[in-house]
Amino acid sequence: MSNKVVTIGEIMMRISTPGYTRFLQADSMDVVYAGSEANVAVSLSLFGLTAAHVTRFPDNDLGRAATQALERYGVNVQHISYGKERIGIYFLENGAMQRPSRIIYDRFDSAFANIRPEHVDWDQILDGASWFHYTGITPAISQGAAEVCLNGARKAHKKGITVSGDINYRRNLWQYGKTAREVMPALIQETNIIVAGVTDFDNCAGIKGKDFGDTCRLAMEAYPNIQKITSTTRESVSSSHNRMGAQLWDGHTLFTSQEYDLTHIVDRVGTGDAYMAGLIYGWQTKKNDQEALEFAMAACALKHSIPGDINLVTVAEVEALRSGENVGKLLR
Amino acid sequence: MSNKVVTIGEIMMRISTPGYTRFLQADSMDVVYAGSEANVAVSLSLFGLTAAHVTRFPDNDLGRAATQALERYGVNVQHISYGKERIGIYFLENGAMQRPSRIIYDRFDSAFANIRPEHVDWDQILDGASWFHYTGITPAISQGAAEVCLNGARKAHKKGITVSGDINYRRNLWQYGKTAREVMPALIQETNIIVAGVTDFDNCAGIKGKDFGDTCRLAMEAYPNIQKITSTTRESVSSSHNRMGAQLWDGHTLFTSQEYDLTHIVDRVGTGDAYMAGLIYGWQTKKNDQEALEFAMAACALKHSIPGDINLVTVAEVEALRSGENVGKLLR
Amino acid sequence: MSNKVVTIGEIMMRISTPGYTRFLQADSMDVVYAGSEANVAVSLSLFGLTAAHVTRFPDNDLGRAATQALERYGVNVQHISYGKERIGIYFLENGAMQRPSRIIYDRFDSAFANIRPEHVDWDQILDGASWFHYTGITPAISQGAAEVCLNGARKAHKKGITVSGDINYRRNLWQYGKTAREVMPALIQETNIIVAGVTDFDNCAGIKGKDFGDTCRLAMEAYPNIQKITSTTRESVSSSHNRMGAQLWDGHTLFTSQEYDLTHIVDRVGTGDAYMAGLIYGWQTKKNDQEALEFAMAACALKHSIPGDINLVTVAEVEALRSGENVGKLLR
Amino acid sequence: MSNKVVTIGEIMMRISTPGYTRFLQADSMDVVYAGSEANVAVSLSLFGLTAAHVTRFPDNDLGRAATQALERYGVNVQHISYGKERIGIYFLENGAMQRPSRIIYDRFDSAFANIRPEHVDWDQILDGASWFHYTGITPAISQGAAEVCLNGARKAHKKGITVSGDINYRRNLWQYGKTAREVMPALIQETNIIVAGVTDFDNCAGIKGKDFGDTCRLAMEAYPNIQKITSTTRESVSSSHNRMGAQLWDGHTLFTSQEYDLTHIVDRVGTGDAYMAGLIYGWQTKKNDQEALEFAMAACALKHSIPGDINLVTVAEVEALRSGENVGKLLR
Amino acid sequence: MSNKVVTIGEIMMRISTPGYTRFLQADSMDVVYAGSEANVAVSLSLFGLTAAHVTRFPDNDLGRAATQALERYGVNVQHISYGKERIGIYFLENGAMQRPSRIIYDRFDSAFANIRPEHVDWDQILDGASWFHYTGITPAISQGAAEVCLNGARKAHKKGITVSGDINYRRNLWQYGKTAREVMPALIQETNIIVAGVTDFDNCAGIKGKDFGDTCRLAMEAYPNIQKITSTTRESVSSSHNRMGAQLWDGHTLFTSQEYDLTHIVDRVGTGDAYMAGLIYGWQTKKNDQEALEFAMAACALKHSIPGDINLVTVAEVEALRSGENVGKLLR
Amino acid sequence: MSNKVVTIGEIMMRISTPGYTRFLQADSMDVVYAGSEANVAVSLSLFGLTAAHVTRFPDNDLGRAATQALERYGVNVQHISYGKERIGIYFLENGAMQRPSRIIYDRFDSAFANIRPEHVDWDQILDGASWFHYTGITPAISQGAAEVCLNGARKAHKKGITVSGDINYRRNLWQYGKTAREVMPALIQETNIIVAGVTDFDNCAGIKGKDFGDTCRLAMEAYPNIQKITSTTRESVSSSHNRMGAQLWDGHTLFTSQEYDLTHIVDRVGTGDAYMAGLIYGWQTKKNDQEALEFAMAACALKHSIPGDINLVTVAEVEALRSGENVGKLLR
Repeated sequence: MSNKVVTIGEIMMRISTPGYTRFLQADSMDVVYAGSEANVAVSLSLFGLTAAHVTRFPDNDLGRAATQALERYGVNVQHISYGKERIGIYFLENGAMQRPSRIIYDRFDSAFANIRPEHVDWDQILDGASWFHYTGITPAISQGAAEVCLNGARKAHKKGITVSGDINYRRNLWQYGKTAREVMPALIQETNIIVAGVTDFDNCAGIKGKDFGDTCRLAMEAYPNIQKITSTTRESVSSSHNRMGAQLWDGHTLFTSQEYDLTHIVDRVGTGDAYMAGLIYGWQTKKNDQEALEFAMAACALKHSIPGDINLVTVAEVEALRSGENVGKLLR
Repeated sequence: MSNKVVTIGEIMMRISTPGYTRFLQADSMDVVYAGSEANVAVSLSLFGLTAAHVTRFPDNDLGRAATQALERYGVNVQHISYGKERIGIYFLENGAMQRPSRIIYDRFDSAFANIRPEHVDWDQILDGASWFHYTGITPAISQGAAEVCLNGARKAHKKGITVSGDINYRRNLWQYGKTAREVMPALIQETNIIVAGVTDFDNCAGIKGKDFGDTCRLAMEAYPNIQKITSTTRESVSSSHNRMGAQLWDGHTLFTSQEYDLTHIVDRVGTGDAYMAGLIYGWQTKKNDQEALEFAMAACALKHSIPGDINLVTVAEVEALRSGENVGKLLR
Repeated sequence: MSNKVVTIGEIMMRISTPGYTRFLQADSMDVVYAGSEANVAVSLSLFGLTAAHVTRFPDNDLGRAATQALERYGVNVQHISYGKERIGIYFLENGAMQRPSRIIYDRFDSAFANIRPEHVDWDQILDGASWFHYTGITPAISQGAAEVCLNGARKAHKKGITVSGDINYRRNLWQYGKTAREVMPALIQETNIIVAGVTDFDNCAGIKGKDFGDTCRLAMEAYPNIQKITSTTRESVSSSHNRMGAQLWDGHTLFTSQEYDLTHIVDRVGTGDAYMAGLIYGWQTKKNDQEALEFAMAACALKHSIPGDINLVTVAEVEALRSGENVGKLLR
Repeated sequence: MSNKVVTIGEIMMRISTPGYTRFLQADSMDVVYAGSEANVAVSLSLFGLTAAHVTRFPDNDLGRAATQALERYGVNVQHISYGKERIGIYFLENGAMQRPSRIIYDRFDSAFANIRPEHVDWDQILDGASWFHYTGITPAISQGAAEVCLNGARKAHKKGITVSGDINYRRNLWQYGKTAREVMPALIQETNIIVAGVTDFDNCAGIKGKDFGDTCRLAMEAYPNIQKITSTTRESVSSSHNRMGAQLWDGHTLFTSQEYDLTHIVDRVGTGDAYMAGLIYGWQTKKNDQEALEFAMAACALKHSIPGDINLVTVAEVEALRSGENVGKLLR
Repeated sequence: MSNKVVTIGEIMMRISTPGYTRFLQADSMDVVYAGSEANVAVSLSLFGLTAAHVTRFPDNDLGRAATQALERYGVNVQHISYGKERIGIYFLENGAMQRPSRIIYDRFDSAFANIRPEHVDWDQILDGASWFHYTGITPAISQGAAEVCLNGARKAHKKGITVSGDINYRRNLWQYGKTAREVMPALIQETNIIVAGVTDFDNCAGIKGKDFGDTCRLAMEAYPNIQKITSTTRESVSSSHNRMGAQLWDGHTLFTSQEYDLTHIVDRVGTGDAYMAGLIYGWQTKKNDQEALEFAMAACALKHSIPGDINLVTVAEVEALRSGENVGKLLR
Repeated sequence: MSNKVVTIGEIMMRISTPGYTRFLQADSMDVVYAGSEANVAVSLSLFGLTAAHVTRFPDNDLGRAATQALERYGVNVQHISYGKERIGIYFLENGAMQRPSRIIYDRFDSAFANIRPEHVDWDQILDGASWFHYTGITPAISQGAAEVCLNGARKAHKKGITVSGDINYRRNLWQYGKTAREVMPALIQETNIIVAGVTDFDNCAGIKGKDFGDTCRLAMEAYPNIQKITSTTRESVSSSHNRMGAQLWDGHTLFTSQEYDLTHIVDRVGTGDAYMAGLIYGWQTKKNDQEALEFAMAACALKHSIPGDINLVTVAEVEALRSGENVGKLLR
């Protein structure tokens, strides 16, 4: 019970061209249902935690298919509401070599964008929870989504539930008349664990540090509820080859993780969510920040090898990579 | 030159489950780009006429893919405009046996719904045209689409170009504040050739006849520009088995076509458009109404055997079926 | 709560050749996870009832994939146990035209065949249930499976829970040293609702009536807990064309359902389970036996149009077919 | 040994559009390797006879793939020769409903068309054979093919081996400067068993009878080595629905087979070859002509349900259909 | 108008094994239509230039499909002629790792090989053109193809149109009785821009320089119309990993491009054509040779990431790679 | 005749997830039939040697499909016996990047596990053979398999046939009550050529050397029939990137092969069998051990680029890689 994690966010239909074909070539596309926060929920459920996801779908077979995509992996779907609108969609063209991946979003006026506070009974949902997770995507979608998200964070914080937020600032998203700097500070105020890079803090809270450590210090001064700030670093040699690592500031020390040379990448979408899920799991089960960070970074690395948004791996698999076992082996 | 046909209407991304799988099962879907009026244009192009289609797409790779889907079959795409909005989508689940086919529309706020009169230079487009074709879907989409369509029909009529309209009333579409009865009469006023059934006339013009012939008489009295009215009849034994025929009123005589027993249906979407294209071709090339009607009905029958919205057949193939040749043969 | 249905039985990996290819041709095969009783549970869950399934899987990714196949459709999987053995498999080659479908079973020594009474806590599982369902397949698999099944039926009957059994006698299955006549009578003794044909009663209980009605009378005399007996009748014109109907004896009256002409069959596996789920749903929600029977037969008919073992339909879809609406239509 | 059958003929790459897509739609195609006489050889091998096929392939991976397509089903491939030329190809578009199937041949100047008498050591090949089979396709391809085929038939006839020929006249094929009437009579002269319809005899030997029986009488008078003449009759309701039967004249009696209603056709290519293989098997194993004819017709019927050119069925499956068993059943 | 490019050359059906399967494994193959010069035309059309392609197809559905493959991307197809022959084919097996890719050509006696001067009205075709492009493949195919190509080059040169030729010497192609040294000099005489390596000049014109620069000098002395000579260099570490660069001689200076490390290659067929299209576009739009060369090399690099022969990229995408932007990013 | 190789071992159905999907994602799987020793037989047949394989299958269509999978590549299948049991299965999930590949074996109680000495007439099978090959997998499967294998090795050794054994110790396999150390020594006693690493000798014969050379010396002392011992070394950077080499001890000298950098791996299953087949071919055709070793290692390297278990390459392709020709080229 104490390991129940609650997440909130939009789940979209991800419609992607097969293999390395371009949008102009594809006459069939692969379909999965995914969203940043739900990806975290599914990964945590596969890690053995209890996860419940809050979202809103259209009341049609696409909404039902999206619901089943969560249910299949054991995520609690009882707090999903249904409306008359459409399901958000994103079209994905997988990059290869030097050619970048491309996403075309088509999420305007989705059922989730129409979520309103009265659709979500946070008291009931947060009952028994130990963790609440949101991302900066949700408050960017609509006034309603921002309100629902802030209500959840406030209620959670008040109940003593750990609140994590993956800031993930995306300029294109903020279209409903508010800016990130108007909306995000109130949310960050309720947050204990932040995933954010230097530019995220500037874009969302006007905080500009000289570097990651400095930015963290400034952020913690401005938002005293923040306990930890973390961020991954990614060098994109090509769409098929990245190098990654992660860093974590706990207010005193800057931890850095092992670096991974990620070549022959299968699917990088959702790797940040895999990192987030690894952190949430790690902090609840590992003996210290370094171990949590390493677990998260290993989870993130593994995700690059799996098609789709979801990190379909077990704790044992992450720990094996963390300790350098089985890498590239043929396990019989 | 005298055989140039101009069509206007929305083209959507058709995303359909493969084979007979349901929405809840599919993890890949087939993608084509299609729309009722564009289907007519492509079929006419394959019949050897010159066809130009007027529409509006988002200025992204999905819009470009849709454009290429027309260009591939020789349709003139120079009058397409591009905007910032999304591409309309429809999701299709193919029925089988007693189970019906299902369509989920997701076309709200599409680029085409945002078309405005200033996007379309009808004088230039209609230059050299002998036929203008619209359907009742277009004026149902948005105020702008209705205006653009009406402008086109008026300009065409004034230039002495034959105007055809496939009324095709769909209650769910009319969402922008006007009703069909408010909008359609002005369009019908400009129209020479109407495809409509008894209920279409009631829904769009308040005309209720006792039967098809009576309705036609009343319609022609009310709208003296109408020269011919035609309609297909379809008996759905199951999703895999239909029986069809067609009738035509020329103001004096009721013609009826051969009936077709359509079993082992592959894809019935777009069969009405195949009929329309057959009529337009037939009236421009056949010696009388009966022959045009038979050509159209044979084209319609053939479409049921072809995956996708488009009637990928030649004039020779339609005529072979019309005359009972090659039916079910293995042509070497 | 009063609509919770508990089912027990093996779930196998169904590995089938694509389209109409034969085993000798296929180099890829379609994979789903299914079993007679689980198919009933999933269908009931899709109908809106609460369903819990009892089974046993190997503790590997195939067992987990099978679990998720239930979870996806909302079936409660908390009572599944896991062991070291293998997952049962059946290979399916879909017939077409005059060519029959073929199944090769490979279920020997599966995890489910190794189920033992101590793996299943019936008191806990049946808590709050209103219905218990088994088939004659389970007691045929192994001594342990037979014991677990009988324990469940006895406990359920004692608790006043309705017990249904789909006798479904298959000679090849009884390989562990007991015959159906040795095992089945004790189970039938606990059963209220029986799905069985004339030969089933002979094979399992030595009851030979002159016809269906007579057999039912004799069975009810011998087993006074039986309240209703029902059976479908199927005429196989070909693998692609069947004719079906159903009959029901309630101790007084022989009800017969509407007959269905099932042509262009997509997948007939699981149609009996669709019928069973229809009955269970019907008896809990319909006003009389005739209505329940018609609902069940319509559900069974619809299943023939859906790939896989599972009847992916809603109550509304079944009722539409039952009342002759939407048959073969294109629903927009 | 006494059941060794020798066949000769071209094997082509069959490149077909998937499902019911047209040539203009397909961006992947299915590939098998097949040819009329080789189809007979494979079917006989699957029936348990020894079959050896004589042909010529290019000495590249496509020729090797074609060789393996025979070897896979146990056909002796030791008498195949290899040259520098290309492999013959045929492109197939499967018809559906009223729409006919279409074949585009691309077999000009193939390795087989370049076969010459010195490539084939008939004495060695026919050693131990009891049956030699050819079709009228082979002598139509090239002078060399005609010579090789005639040499084989003569040598076989001289050795007392039964010679069968499926006349199968195709006007388009005769392109190398000879007509069928110039070439075929010498071949027919060596033949004991003829598959031919009324027009085949006219086209190949100038024999015009009033009907099938009369034509057979005239043919047997002209060619005293002929012992039996047989032909199938096919009514093409549509590409998806045929009705078939067969007739056989033994010089005295006209036998007719059971008729088959063949609906939901999967693939009709190769059904004549399935009939031929059924006859050859039947005459070597059945007690009389009627039984052989029925076996052949049942084999032919089954082929319609199988994708590809080859009749992938066993003797037991054919006999089950012949006796009306298992039709459309689900065999477990 | 001044940017109209005219190309001439054969378009073949490219039939390739899926993924990394070998010819011996594949039972379905991917089909596109492509040819070196047409690939250039399509790429230029996608870059926004006007492109017209001259070729000859069989008058059947495969010829029509090939035509549509050009039309789809906006290439002018009005100058294509149709005949009775076959379409040229090439079978492709994609290499991986150390294993090389393999092509089996089957283009003998194709419709294009049968092209004759009277099929092509160069005056009409070249009207308004600013560029004419051919490759050394065309004159190698047949006497007719060589004549048509030479006629085009001469007419273009006389009209002051820039003529480019990609020499691309392939020994196996020259089968019709002439050698490259007999045919090519006349063509080179009309050419302003040459793509050729050191051995190409030797094979086609008997010019042997000490190195690239020296060869260029000798070539320009012998053929004074040549203004620029360029060539790419490719190091094949494996089928999955190449390193490439390009060099250009303008008569005075040797320019060299940035080098690209091309790992995780998706499809290298058509990369030379992508380079050529990049050059033609670059010389018409860039400020100097260095910029044109860099644009061409970036276009060539991008092509390695795209399945099929065609470089489906925009100018903006090439320029982004040229300037090092977006490499391997996920563009939202 | 003198090049006939006899192999013995189980052939399983290999059911693998497509691309890089995980078991939890796949709803279709790829199917081939393969086994370590049969992979060797097929490779040798493709190299041009005569190969005969001894195994046992169930007497159903899956057993027949497995038989055809050998027959297709020319392996002699006359010594296969058939029983009532099941076919062994292994499920494969292909790894990528750091994520390991996973195999789930499901081979218990297979037809091959039920092989008994009376099923195999070694005298007949070994007639004319020059080589007998087994692996350590076979004696690990069952008592019967171990006996049959030992009988074969003894009979072969007595006849002067070279006996090779790939020790390939797998702890999980030994389940029938005997340990490797109890069974293997008798087999090794009959063996001339051993593929084994240091730990294999320890596990199977209790021989522990300080290093590979030392272990070989000790093994040859203990088992004087051994003439050569060889082993590959593999460094797994990741599932997509390995580095490999091989070493060989002939009793006097330690030979080492060229090393291969194997990146962009397609399928590593069966690479050890490719090495073994390379050795067997090499020792029968090459002039010395070094050449045989290099041939084997090049064969092994090539296999990594080919989907499935089987090394579908020719001698010419292996020799080209061995001599560094054609690496990564596009061969036309």
